[in-house]
Amino acid sequence: MPTSAPWDSLWIDLSVATMDGATMGDADGYGAIADAAVGIKDGRIAYVGPRTELTGAPEDLATEVHSGQGGWMTPGLIDCHTHLVYGGNRAREFEMRLNGASYEEIARAGGGILSTVTATRAASEDQLLAATLPRLDSLLAEGVTTVEVKSGYGLDSETETRMLCVARRLAQVRPVEVRTTYLGAHALPPEFKGDPDGYIDRICAETLPAIAEAGLADAVDAFCEGIGFSVAQTRRVFEVAKRLGLPVKLHAEQLSNLGGARLVAEFGGLSADHIEHLDEEGVVAMAKAGTVAVLLPGAFYALRETKLPPIELLRRHGVPMALSTDNNPGTSPVTSLLLMLSMGCTFFRLTPAEALAGITRHAAKALGLDDRGVIAPGKRADLAVWRIEHPAELAYAIGLNPCMAVVNGGVVRKPRVEAGAA
Amino acid sequence: MPTSAPWDSLWIDLSVATMDGATMGDADGYGAIADAAVGIKDGRIAYVGPRTELTGAPEDLATEVHSGQGGWMTPGLIDCHTHLVYGGNRAREFEMRLNGASYEEIARAGGGILSTVTATRAASEDQLLAATLPRLDSLLAEGVTTVEVKSGYGLDSETETRMLCVARRLAQVRPVEVRTTYLGAHALPPEFKGDPDGYIDRICAETLPAIAEAGLADAVDAFCEGIGFSVAQTRRVFEVAKRLGLPVKLHAEQLSNLGGARLVAEFGGLSADHIEHLDEEGVVAMAKAGTVAVLLPGAFYALRETKLPPIELLRRHGVPMALSTDNNPGTSPVTSLLLMLSMGCTFFRLTPAEALAGITRHAAKALGLDDRGVIAPGKRADLAVWRIEHPAELAYAIGLNPCMAVVNGGVVRKPRVEAGAA
Ligand SMILES: [Zn+2]
Ligand SMILES: [Zn+2]
Repeated sequence: MPTSAPWDSLWIDLSVATMDGATMGDADGYGAIADAAVGIKDGRIAYVGPRTELTGAPEDLATEVHSGQGGWMTPGLIDCHTHLVYGGNRAREFEMRLNGASYEEIARAGGGILSTVTATRAASEDQLLAATLPRLDSLLAEGVTTVEVKSGYGLDSETETRMLCVARRLAQVRPVEVRTTYLGAHALPPEFKGDPDGYIDRICAETLPAIAEAGLADAVDAFCEGIGFSVAQTRRVFEVAKRLGLPVKLHAEQLSNLGGARLVAEFGGLSADHIEHLDEEGVVAMAKAGTVAVLLPGAFYALRETKLPPIELLRRHGVPMALSTDNNPGTSPVTSLLLMLSMGCTFFRLTPAEALAGITRHAAKALGLDDRGVIAPGKRADLAVWRIEHPAELAYAIGLNPCMAVVNGGVVRKPRVEAGAA
Repeated sequence: MPTSAPWDSLWIDLSVATMDGATMGDADGYGAIADAAVGIKDGRIAYVGPRTELTGAPEDLATEVHSGQGGWMTPGLIDCHTHLVYGGNRAREFEMRLNGASYEEIARAGGGILSTVTATRAASEDQLLAATLPRLDSLLAEGVTTVEVKSGYGLDSETETRMLCVARRLAQVRPVEVRTTYLGAHALPPEFKGDPDGYIDRICAETLPAIAEAGLADAVDAFCEGIGFSVAQTRRVFEVAKRLGLPVKLHAEQLSNLGGARLVAEFGGLSADHIEHLDEEGVVAMAKAGTVAVLLPGAFYALRETKLPPIELLRRHGVPMALSTDNNPGTSPVTSLLLMLSMGCTFFRLTPAEALAGITRHAAKALGLDDRGVIAPGKRADLAVWRIEHPAELAYAIGLNPCMAVVNGGVVRKPRVEAGAA
């Protein structure tokens, strides 16, 4: 084994969907390279291109040579909007509703978001970690290499902090990069009943500054909605985030068009998420600000939503579209990012290439990360290798996982799933 | 290890959803037993009931004692309607459509069902087996222990026979029981263009009798639809099936209400499948004949169907409802039976208990099997063990696989998935 090999590893016998804008003049939008080679050095991409342009035998070029077995390599997948850390689940509430219970009956039986708040507050850090790992493992088995995780089921300072600590720990116990988001303004905690502005005061004066000081949040989010917080309340949170140097994003225009997308664009925010009710004015504002549209077809599905996000407007104005699981116990208990490709295409009529960009290139942008999401020299070697003949198969198949290898910062792992492992 | 233990194995430390009608007087429809024990002898259930009713220590009662680790046991899952064996896939056609191609352009590019017929005819038996295994493995990883497989992409006698031989071989190379169905009347083969009655003649006079003679089919199916075969043509096929002693089932009332369900009921058929357009007269006929309604939410989803099957009518008349993947390359490329629980509840408003009965008890009935689908003394020990706290979680979760063990005829396997393994 030559110690002088220029690269640490080299992948051959595969096609590559680079998802790289620079090479996406191709007809199909994948930045595809047939019979490709990918060289990796120090955890970064050192080479991507046709294998025929390599000079020298593979074993002279790299310490390790991997075969893609005729499959495809894509960037590692990025799930840019999740509420992965929480206690309990809402299966019984789901069942009660299907058995005809009213929302009132469910609320009386302790259902709804506050049941998740109660369960999350009651769980220790270790218990929250144990509850989260099966969900994370399900994502990782499908080639996810970066995941965003929000707080928002603690609402009090202590539990919000604990949730974010658990999110950070995920990256220590699993091969994944985690970006954390403080979502204190997710719901009104019972101790502030009738006093949403008082709760916003608390967030702005105490909780958010403390979480920022502890370095626990990479971004700040809120739920801007008639049943959530107003634009004015959200603005107050964003102003504190800005002062603290944290980027913002927003659950916006999911159930109504309040103007949340314009607000997040005004703050140069990373993304506006859900956006079924977004209007053209909001789209234009997002386009100008470079704010990503994060589409969440799992919630659309689970809520049996019929109002579609304005895909054509987003296309026309060049707003990048990301796709994500929105994993959460109430409205999107989804732990398959590949299924979001299928639902993004089926419900929202995205093309398979748009959908794949939505969980790679554009998902990275939604997290403010420019070092990943495409396969190009200098980018992180976060990669997934698939047993497929064409990348459209990733969006076409429903419930199949053709992932055969994952590379995290240059390190190869097999996405073997011990199903049900906790 | 006592050789005189009465049972071969014993499961403890779990709850059981027996799905057994005899015990389903319970409020929730699962036939649930908390702190249960399940004894197995010679591949059959020897005991199921409360653990407290066992007399003697577990190790005195069985040669092997297994812990369910506090989870739940259900009957092994049964996928009662699949087209699992085929060549090629239709991902490019899926992509062309999303890129705006018309059906005519897709047909000119070689798309549609005939592209699958061409690919299937061109594939050897070994190639078809290799193409099928990843799809089957995806089902098995989720606790499937019995799967139905149809022919219908060969249409000529030789390829239909080859498809059914591959279906039979699945049970030799994987831990699964396979029921085969001859579906010659699936589409009109190009060599009979303009002559559907001539093709039905061929089926009735040659292909079906030969396949029955070879023992390759456990049942006979047809696609009764405006774009398929008429009720009169289907009746001719069914009459031959009856003469040959083969039970019938039917793709019926998917796109229009032709009366196929009444026809299959008239023949005492096993099931009428799809049935979005079924009317009350058809429901009544099915109820009288004991014909199962097989609901296929994957096709409903992929086709963006809006017409719902008549769930309330089926409930009112006591027609058993099964759920299945309908795995096929054109209209339901689904390889997750658990996802069909979610879609059955979300789209069709089944309760989680109805949905689970649909992939156990009622799926067995749809295959004419009365030795499985429930956990009761004397039944096959086909079982699945889940890391869940309540069976409603199986329908609630979207894209999660909590299966931790599967038992096939008494033999335990781990549903470990080497993801992407072919
Ligand atoms: Zn969310
Ligand atoms: Zn079918």
